[in-house]
Amino acid sequence: MGKKLAIIATKGTLDWAYPPLILASTAAALDYETEIFFTFYGLQILKKKPPLKVSSLGNPGMPMPMKMEKWFPNICQALPGMESMMTSMMKAKMKKKGVASILDLRNLCLEAEVKMIACQMTVDLFDMNPKAFIPECEFGGAATFFEFAGQSDINLYI
Amino acid sequence: MGKKLAIIATKGTLDWAYPPLILASTAAALDYETEIFFTFYGLQILKKKPPLKVSSLGNPGMPMPMKMEKWFPNICQALPGMESMMTSMMKAKMKKKGVASILDLRNLCLEAEVKMIACQMTVDLFDMNPKAFIPECEFGGAATFFEFAGQSDINLYI
Amino acid sequence: MGKKLAIIATKGTLDWAYPPLILASTAAALDYETEIFFTFYGLQILKKKPPLKVSSLGNPGMPMPMKMEKWFPNICQALPGMESMMTSMMKAKMKKKGVASILDLRNLCLEAEVKMIACQMTVDLFDMNPKAFIPECEFGGAATFFEFAGQSDINLYI
Repeated sequence: MGKKLAIIATKGTLDWAYPPLILASTAAALDYETEIFFTFYGLQILKKKPPLKVSSLGNPGMPMPMKMEKWFPNICQALPGMESMMTSMMKAKMKKKGVASILDLRNLCLEAEVKMIACQMTVDLFDMNPKAFIPECEFGGAATFFEFAGQSDINLYI
Repeated sequence: MGKKLAIIATKGTLDWAYPPLILASTAAALDYETEIFFTFYGLQILKKKPPLKVSSLGNPGMPMPMKMEKWFPNICQALPGMESMMTSMMKAKMKKKGVASILDLRNLCLEAEVKMIACQMTVDLFDMNPKAFIPECEFGGAATFFEFAGQSDINLYI
Repeated sequence: MGKKLAIIATKGTLDWAYPPLILASTAAALDYETEIFFTFYGLQILKKKPPLKVSSLGNPGMPMPMKMEKWFPNICQALPGMESMMTSMMKAKMKKKGVASILDLRNLCLEAEVKMIACQMTVDLFDMNPKAFIPECEFGGAATFFEFAGQSDINLYI
């Protein structure tokens, strides 16, 4: 019998949207039955047009071009427009390096039959429109997650 | 034999205090034997009066009322008082939506016999007063965590 | 047969560098076969001289000396030099309290034969110099991680 991977995806930034999708698509390619439970900010990843941005605030571990680090201390990284600029830079870099986009990775997961569940409680809490999400996702609660996670070989909270 | 869930709770903000308590109380309701190891900032959750706030700094994935996003770029979210304001807003929203408070969820966990362990090393490191914590918690180290985690069906690092 | 622990280390700040190394060294001492996959900002931990800093931005859960909290609202924590100051303060406090440094903990892990894998994709993406990393680490991808994780008793995404 094949192995199983259960992921809880809770983050909604451009950088942290990658790990659940990279791990899920890799696992699916290795014949794992895979399920992702999107909750809290992670729900952004399930939107038809994911509004994902990256921020360096509070993350001094983020590598930046050396000159940028000198020019832009934290106080400047908090200025209006900085997140959009850094998001563009990161997207350009990933494209140049041949890293798949979030949309490509999400499609790869869907083609590999990774099951995607949107947390109903979060949808209600943030007044999100269920029609904003991709039609492939299902809606469920924490109990739905445990059904699959309880029999999984690997569980990851991201 | 029933299933087991082991959680490491490391975050001390209002939003990230929810996942360990929601997952633990749900699992306990599903008859999982459940244990949470509170370490680093997660220890705030174990305080008699948890000093939990929410911050949007460095988290562009946080949904905000559209107008707020326009009015409050990052630089304003860093102003004194903003965290308190956003914390009040989030608490009000959760109450309106019928989401249980952190204290209610923690009580629910305790009634369901979720075992709560406070990381002794972190308590020592931050000079925390052991009497500031709820009397139901025990104190232990990483080795204590592994005793239970090593035989658990699900392990989550939050 | 001994138990196995697989860790994914994704964070590159001074505070979040501790959990993977503390958990891995504790597990190794308890005879767990242990492997850490360093990816995204976690790769900073594998550098010969880890450039790790701590930030309080976006983390209102971080305990601070009471007077500091009053003097330094978020807007000041974003000023140039604050991260370096807080990093020095945290290092001094840990030394005073007898907590091992990151380098000591990393050596402890290596002596206990914890296997360390650097994520090749991240190295390529951020144009990191492979020679900047400690010679004990190997390079691999997500598939390498699953080889070990799929048979592990405990999997943690940090």
